[in-house]
Amino acid sequence: MPKRIPVVENILSANDQLAQQNRQQLDQAGIFAVNLMASPGAGKTTLIEHTVQRLAGEYRLAAIDGDIATSIDADRAAAAGATAIQINTGGQCHLDAVMLRDALQQLDLHQLDLLLVENVGNLVCPADFKLGTHKNVLIASIPEGDDKPYKYPGMYKDVDALVINKIDLLPYIDFDMDYFRRGVELLNPGLVAFPISCRTAQGLDEWLLWIKTNASP
Amino acid sequence: MPKRIPVVENILSANDQLAQQNRQQLDQAGIFAVNLMASPGAGKTTLIEHTVQRLAGEYRLAAIDGDIATSIDADRAAAAGATAIQINTGGQCHLDAVMLRDALQQLDLHQLDLLLVENVGNLVCPADFKLGTHKNVLIASIPEGDDKPYKYPGMYKDVDALVINKIDLLPYIDFDMDYFRRGVELLNPGLVAFPISCRTAQGLDEWLLWIKTNASP
Repeated sequence: MPKRIPVVENILSANDQLAQQNRQQLDQAGIFAVNLMASPGAGKTTLIEHTVQRLAGEYRLAAIDGDIATSIDADRAAAAGATAIQINTGGQCHLDAVMLRDALQQLDLHQLDLLLVENVGNLVCPADFKLGTHKNVLIASIPEGDDKPYKYPGMYKDVDALVINKIDLLPYIDFDMDYFRRGVELLNPGLVAFPISCRTAQGLDEWLLWIKTNASP
Repeated sequence: MPKRIPVVENILSANDQLAQQNRQQLDQAGIFAVNLMASPGAGKTTLIEHTVQRLAGEYRLAAIDGDIATSIDADRAAAAGATAIQINTGGQCHLDAVMLRDALQQLDLHQLDLLLVENVGNLVCPADFKLGTHKNVLIASIPEGDDKPYKYPGMYKDVDALVINKIDLLPYIDFDMDYFRRGVELLNPGLVAFPISCRTAQGLDEWLLWIKTNASP
C-alpha cells in the first residue's frame, strides 16, 4: 500500500528545481559530477578511494560523503587525496539537492574537475531525490544476492551505470549472474555495467575509462 | 542537517498507538512476534527459511514479508513451511504498524504460535517505526563491513538482539570483529549477539534456542 500525499510531490518538485541549479553551477565550473548510490557496505567509499588514488594525477578531485553519522567516509576520501566534505544527515535516509548545494558552497569549484558524491547507504530512498549530478551510478555487491534488481526496481531503473562490486567473492556465494543481469535488463535495457573487485582491483580500468571519457581534466 | 517537522512526530505517535494495538492482538492470541531488520541482502529471508524449517515441527509459524516489490520472499517462506503474507510497500522504505495490522487481519491468529516479520531491506528507516512485535532483531552481514554500527547508530541502538550473518565469508573479507563489537557495545551495551552462517548452518542452534526461550508452543 504505497502512500502518496501531495506534500511529498511538492518536496520532490522543489528538490528538482534545486538540483537543476546545482547542475548549472557544476557546468559553469566545468566539473563532471557523479552520484554514487548503494546499500550499506556495497563499496561506495572504497570505490571512491580507488578512483581518487588512480585519477588524482590527472584530475582535481573532490568527494562529498553523505552518512547518517561519523566522518569515516570523508576521512578515507581525504586520505586518498581528494578534497573531502562530510554531510551528516542525522536520520535522513538519502541526500537531497539542498544538502549538495550547501556542500558545494564549501568547495572552490573552479579548482575542481571531478566530483564524486557518496549518497547514504540505502537501496530505496536515494532513487527519488535528484542532486544535479551528471551521472547516477548504482553499486551492486555480489554478497547482497542476485535478486536485488527484482526487489529494488526503483533504484535500478533510472541509473546511468552499474558497478557490480566484490566479484572476488563469487566462488564463495550462490549468485546467478545471468538471473541478476536479466533483472537489470528488464528495468534498464542496455545499462552499462562494470564488474569489479575493489579488493583485487579487477575491472577497475574499465570503470576509470568510463569516468575519463565523461570528465575533462 | 536533520530535518524535523511536526507532521513527522504526529505520524510517529499515531504509529506507536497502532503498534500497541498490534501487540495486544498478538498477546491475546499467544503469539511471539519478531521484527527482522537489515540491509538488502543481509540474509533476512534465508534466516526465516532456516527458522521455519527447523521449528515447524514444534510451532505453528507465519511470516510476513515486506518488500518494495515482488513476492519472492513470501514465496520462499511459504516453501519452507510457514503461512506467508507478502506486503509490497510500493516505494516506502520501511514497514509501519498500519501495514502489520492489515497483514494480521489476513491471518488466523489463534492458529499461530510464532510470527516472523521481515522488514524492508534498509539500515535507516525501519528503526523509527515500531510495529508492535515483541522483539526487534537486526541482522548484520560480514560483507557489509565492520564500520556499520558507527555509521548507522539508529538501527543498532534500539534492537533486542543482533544476528551477525555470513561468518563463513570472514576468511575472504577484511572485517575486524573487535572493532565491530566495540561499536555495538557503545550503542547497545550487553546486546545479545548470534554469529551465524545461514550457508553452513553454523551458529543457528543458539539463535533457535533464543527464539524458543521466548516463544511458547
